[in-house]
Amino acid sequence: MLARELNLSVATVSKALRDSYEINPQTKQRVLEMARTMEYIPNPYASSLRRKTSRTIAVVLPDMADSFFSLAVNGIHSVAAEKGYHVLFYLTFEDYEREVAILRDCQSGRVDGVLLSVSENTVEGEHVRALAAAGLPLVFFDRICEDLEASQVVTDDFGSSYAAAQTLMAQGCKKIMYIRTSSGLSISNKREEGFRAALAAQGLPADDDSVIVCSGTAEENTRQLQQLLKNRKRPDGILATAEKLVTPIYLASQSLQLRIPEDLKVISFTNLPSAVILSPALTTVKQPAFEIGKRAAQLLFARIEKPSLKTLIEKIVLPSVIETRKSTGHT
Amino acid sequence: MLARELNLSVATVSKALRDSYEINPQTKQRVLEMARTMEYIPNPYASSLRRKTSRTIAVVLPDMADSFFSLAVNGIHSVAAEKGYHVLFYLTFEDYEREVAILRDCQSGRVDGVLLSVSENTVEGEHVRALAAAGLPLVFFDRICEDLEASQVVTDDFGSSYAAAQTLMAQGCKKIMYIRTSSGLSISNKREEGFRAALAAQGLPADDDSVIVCSGTAEENTRQLQQLLKNRKRPDGILATAEKLVTPIYLASQSLQLRIPEDLKVISFTNLPSAVILSPALTTVKQPAFEIGKRAAQLLFARIEKPSLKTLIEKIVLPSVIETRKSTGHT
Repeated sequence: MLARELNLSVATVSKALRDSYEINPQTKQRVLEMARTMEYIPNPYASSLRRKTSRTIAVVLPDMADSFFSLAVNGIHSVAAEKGYHVLFYLTFEDYEREVAILRDCQSGRVDGVLLSVSENTVEGEHVRALAAAGLPLVFFDRICEDLEASQVVTDDFGSSYAAAQTLMAQGCKKIMYIRTSSGLSISNKREEGFRAALAAQGLPADDDSVIVCSGTAEENTRQLQQLLKNRKRPDGILATAEKLVTPIYLASQSLQLRIPEDLKVISFTNLPSAVILSPALTTVKQPAFEIGKRAAQLLFARIEKPSLKTLIEKIVLPSVIETRKSTGHT
Repeated sequence: MLARELNLSVATVSKALRDSYEINPQTKQRVLEMARTMEYIPNPYASSLRRKTSRTIAVVLPDMADSFFSLAVNGIHSVAAEKGYHVLFYLTFEDYEREVAILRDCQSGRVDGVLLSVSENTVEGEHVRALAAAGLPLVFFDRICEDLEASQVVTDDFGSSYAAAQTLMAQGCKKIMYIRTSSGLSISNKREEGFRAALAAQGLPADDDSVIVCSGTAEENTRQLQQLLKNRKRPDGILATAEKLVTPIYLASQSLQLRIPEDLKVISFTNLPSAVILSPALTTVKQPAFEIGKRAAQLLFARIEKPSLKTLIEKIVLPSVIETRKSTGHT
C-alpha cells in the first residue's frame, strides 16, 4: 500500500523502513513521511519472518485461580513490558496432553522462549527436552520437571515445609497432617520430604495416614476433611501445601466445632492478602511470588538475547517467609 | 527444508500442505509423508501472512491481583482453547498510555480480535475507535469505555450496588460510606449511581463525604480508612467496590476496636473464596467472573468467524448475587 502510494518497489520501501544503507537518504525521507501520513503499521509476522525472531515469549501454567500465579504473572509482565516483548499466555488446566501440544506448537517459531510451570499430571519431561533440542530456551518457575536439568526459579520447598512443620511442633503439635493437592507434583514431593524430615528430627512418627491428597473441588475437599477430622485419632496440626485448601480446612473445622488453634493448629502455603483477617488469622508460608515470576523472566530474556547463554543452566532458589499468626497459637 | 529434501519448489510444497487442487495426489502424498518423517512444523507467522489471519486474540486488562480477573481469564481461556486460538496477554498496570500503545500494536495484524477491560485512567475511547476503524473486532468485559458504543459483557453494576446499599439499610444503617478505588472508572461511576439512587429512595442523604476514593497501596488505604473511621461522624455501613479494599477495611476497624457488624456493617464486591472464613464472614456482591470472561470470548469469536457480525453491537449483562453473611449482621 505504502509502496503503491510512493510508486516504489515493496523491497525498496521495506529496506527504507529498516534504515538500510542500500537506500539513499532522500528516498528514506519520502518513505518515512508517507508512512507517518498513512499511519502505516508494519505487519509483525512479516517482520518476524525476516528477522527470524518473534519478540514473543510463551507463559504456560496450570490455571489462574490462585494468588501465587496471579502475582507471578504480574512479575513476568513487568519484565516483558520493559523488554518490549509480547506474551502468549497458555493455561493447561492441569492437563498434561494439552501441555505437550502447547510446547510442540511453541517450536514452530511462534515464540523466542518459554516460561513453564508444569501441570499436576506432568511426570516426565520429554516434551520439554524436545523444546531444548529445537534450540528454544526454557525456564521453569515454581513447578518444575524433576527428571531433567533446566534453568529454574523456585522457592525452597523442602526448607519452607521443614520450617512450617517445626513451627507446628514448637506450638505443641504431636500429630501433624500434611495435605497436598496432587500425588505427582515435584514441589509437593519436596515439601513432603521437608515435612517428614522435620518430624523425624523430633522423633515423631509420620505414618502413611499423615499424608493426605485432597484433589477435588472445594466442596469435595471440605467433605473429605470433615471425615478425616471426625476420626478419633484426628490430627492436632495441619500443614497445607496450597491456598485452595485453606477454605475447606476452616469450613470443615467449623462444622465439627473444632477450634483453631485450640483443637487444631493450621499453617498453609499462600499469598492471600486476606490471611490476616481470617477467623482466626492464618499462619502462612509466603512465597516471593512476584519475584519468582520476575526472576524467571529475566533468566529467559538473558538466554534469548545472548545465544551463548542458551545452554547454561541456572537454578535460583528464593526464600519463603513464615508469618506466624493466631491459627498456630501465636499472637 | 522440506522442499530441499524433496527436490521440489517451496511453492509446490506449500500448496501440497494446504491440499491445493493444483498439486497432483502423488506429490501431495510424498510431501505429507516427508513432513511427518521430518516432524515438520509449519511456521505460524508464514501461515498467518498467507491466510491473513493470526488465529490469535489479545486480552488486555489492568493487572492480575484480583480474583475477579483470575476467574475471567480462566473463562476466556476455556473458550480460546476450544477454538484452537492463541491468546496474547497484556497487562496495562492501570496505565492509559500503555493501553493506547498495546491497542495500536494490535492493529498490525498481530491479532484477529481484542478483549479489553480498560485501565482506571482511561477516560476516552479514541484508541478503541481506531481499532474498530481498522476493522478489528473488540469486546469489552467488566470495565468499559462509556463514551463509545461497543459490544460488551458486564454485570449489572447499577443494580448490584443498589441492592448492596439496600442490604445495609435493611440492617439499620443510616450513614453509609461508598468506597471506590479510582475516580474515573465507568463501573465505579455506575455503582456510585446505584448507591446514590438506593439512598435517595429511602430519603437518606448521600453527602459528598459519603463517597471516598482509596487509590493507594494496601497500607495507605488502611491508614486513610483509620482516619475516616476515627471521625466522630463515622459511618455505620460501608459499601466497597473492590476486593483489594476488604483487608484494609477489616484491619482499620480492628485497630480502632470497631466491631463488625455491631459498630460497622460491611459489604464488598469480591469473588474471594475465603469470604466465608473471614472474621467475621463477609457479605459479598459476587460477580459471575468466569462467565463474564467466557461470554466475552464467545462474542468475540462470533465476530471473528463471521465478518457480517463484526459491526453488530451486543451488550450482555449478567447478574451478580449478594451473599449475606455476618459482616452485615446476617447469620
